[in-house]
Amino acid sequence: MNSLQALGQQSLFALEMMAVLASALSGVLGALRQRMDLVGICVCGFLAAFGGGVLRDILIDRRPFFFVEHQGVLLAVLVLSAGSAILVGRRGLESGERWLRLPDAVGLGLFSATGVHLSWIAGQPPLVAVLMGVITGSFGGVLRDLICNEIPTLFRDHRPYAVCAAAGGGVYALLTWGGAPVAAAIAACALVTTGLRVLALQLDWRLPPAERT
Amino acid sequence: MNSLQALGQQSLFALEMMAVLASALSGVLGALRQRMDLVGICVCGFLAAFGGGVLRDILIDRRPFFFVEHQGVLLAVLVLSAGSAILVGRRGLESGERWLRLPDAVGLGLFSATGVHLSWIAGQPPLVAVLMGVITGSFGGVLRDLICNEIPTLFRDHRPYAVCAAAGGGVYALLTWGGAPVAAAIAACALVTTGLRVLALQLDWRLPPAERT
Amino acid sequence: MNSLQALGQQSLFALEMMAVLASALSGVLGALRQRMDLVGICVCGFLAAFGGGVLRDILIDRRPFFFVEHQGVLLAVLVLSAGSAILVGRRGLESGERWLRLPDAVGLGLFSATGVHLSWIAGQPPLVAVLMGVITGSFGGVLRDLICNEIPTLFRDHRPYAVCAAAGGGVYALLTWGGAPVAAAIAACALVTTGLRVLALQLDWRLPPAERT
Repeated sequence: MNSLQALGQQSLFALEMMAVLASALSGVLGALRQRMDLVGICVCGFLAAFGGGVLRDILIDRRPFFFVEHQGVLLAVLVLSAGSAILVGRRGLESGERWLRLPDAVGLGLFSATGVHLSWIAGQPPLVAVLMGVITGSFGGVLRDLICNEIPTLFRDHRPYAVCAAAGGGVYALLTWGGAPVAAAIAACALVTTGLRVLALQLDWRLPPAERT
Repeated sequence: MNSLQALGQQSLFALEMMAVLASALSGVLGALRQRMDLVGICVCGFLAAFGGGVLRDILIDRRPFFFVEHQGVLLAVLVLSAGSAILVGRRGLESGERWLRLPDAVGLGLFSATGVHLSWIAGQPPLVAVLMGVITGSFGGVLRDLICNEIPTLFRDHRPYAVCAAAGGGVYALLTWGGAPVAAAIAACALVTTGLRVLALQLDWRLPPAERT
Repeated sequence: MNSLQALGQQSLFALEMMAVLASALSGVLGALRQRMDLVGICVCGFLAAFGGGVLRDILIDRRPFFFVEHQGVLLAVLVLSAGSAILVGRRGLESGERWLRLPDAVGLGLFSATGVHLSWIAGQPPLVAVLMGVITGSFGGVLRDLICNEIPTLFRDHRPYAVCAAAGGGVYALLTWGGAPVAAAIAACALVTTGLRVLALQLDWRLPPAERT
């Protein structure tokens, strides 16, 4: 690996860490809203941060999990979860919630791209690989909501989230079929996903079915 | 494989498809009742259709999943879920709900029989194989209900459903112990399960404990 | 194995059975509170008894599950669940609930110690092994609560449970690092976990965050 690649990898890792920690904070906030104790807070932080990837790895039968390979990141997520719950508290986290939107959109792109790519090279068929990308990017939040005894936001928000990841995954599949280099397909997938998510939030797009029932 | 076997396999596949799509519709209906968006509808359709088999395959460590091997069926389930939600809507699906009962009972029999058989040939002990049959046939609905934030119907309906699958699984185990051919054991399991389920609905059987608490 | 070891193993197995059956009863009670039928009762009993270990085994990719290896124990859990629900009923189980606390604390110790040990020898890093111990000891109850459509007690009880298992797991890790014999590390882990849990109940310890939100 030359030094430019190394720099790229380091920037990517920094972005990923930012996104992981932002996800963990969304989990902590969900737990605090349900008045959970320290254990519930750490579990929600963990699930929001790592749950999508763990679910994908169980489905495509891949080991070790990200949090097993990167024990330091696991420790950081647990310490951040406990620390922010005790030191900042619910009010503080809620007031900072909209600052989490951009890192969350970045994370959606990065994690979905990783998920599509890992499933693709594990030999999953295209449609399944795209689904695995969606799961990686967005099912951490689903697991967090299930633990909080709520219908997952992902399923009733009517704002595009999983759909952005699916579109990005489609771009990955098309580029890879077309013979594009792996790195380009991954980057395009992440950029399209994050870009669509940011647009969807800015322009307030809605998913069907319209609430006519 | 001779042509009679081929015909049998094709009929079986057609029956299975009918049952898979009927299950998916039950998922769509659950999602619409909770006013989910397109993403939630597809996830509920997916889980109701494939969830039991996926859970069994994770438990007996078997890959690839049915939906990975049959990408076309996966696509059909997703398209049917989205299409029926948008084109038919909740009222329409509810009025058709009792038409789903027979395909659902057929699916219970077919999926349970497949589940017992796959677990049995994977070397699981008899009681476990029967449980895996029950899970295959009935836990898609459990996962759908969990996602919809409801106590699973399977656990509080007081009408025999899992119990029919367990009885069918017992028949499979007894026949296989007795040296019956595999195809006969599978067919008997499916017929007993479906038959008991239809009887249970017709005669309005109830499970204990009676509601005396 | 000499006869003293054999005696030790038998006592351990007896203790484990007591703890497994006590867990199953906690599941039955949860199911009865939700007015579940026989199927729900057996599933809740099963999940409370075996769920933590099954989840750990899925995460560390270990097979066969305990309940697959010990079909007799599986049968005992299902029979006990159905039998206690029908013969004793909810009122009877509730009045006996505090008798379950000690076996439950013993089970927390034993299952957590097994979980840490199995994960450790499967090559998981220390922090992950400790987490797996916590999951083994305490996530059966989480799965039971999720099925019962409740926020898991483990996450909002504010009384130390998972934390006791984490402390015990830490003791295991320290002793093993320090070169202690395996049996000593396992025993210390179980004793510390159970001891802390009993103390926590006796002295009414509470976890942060205090309910100031």
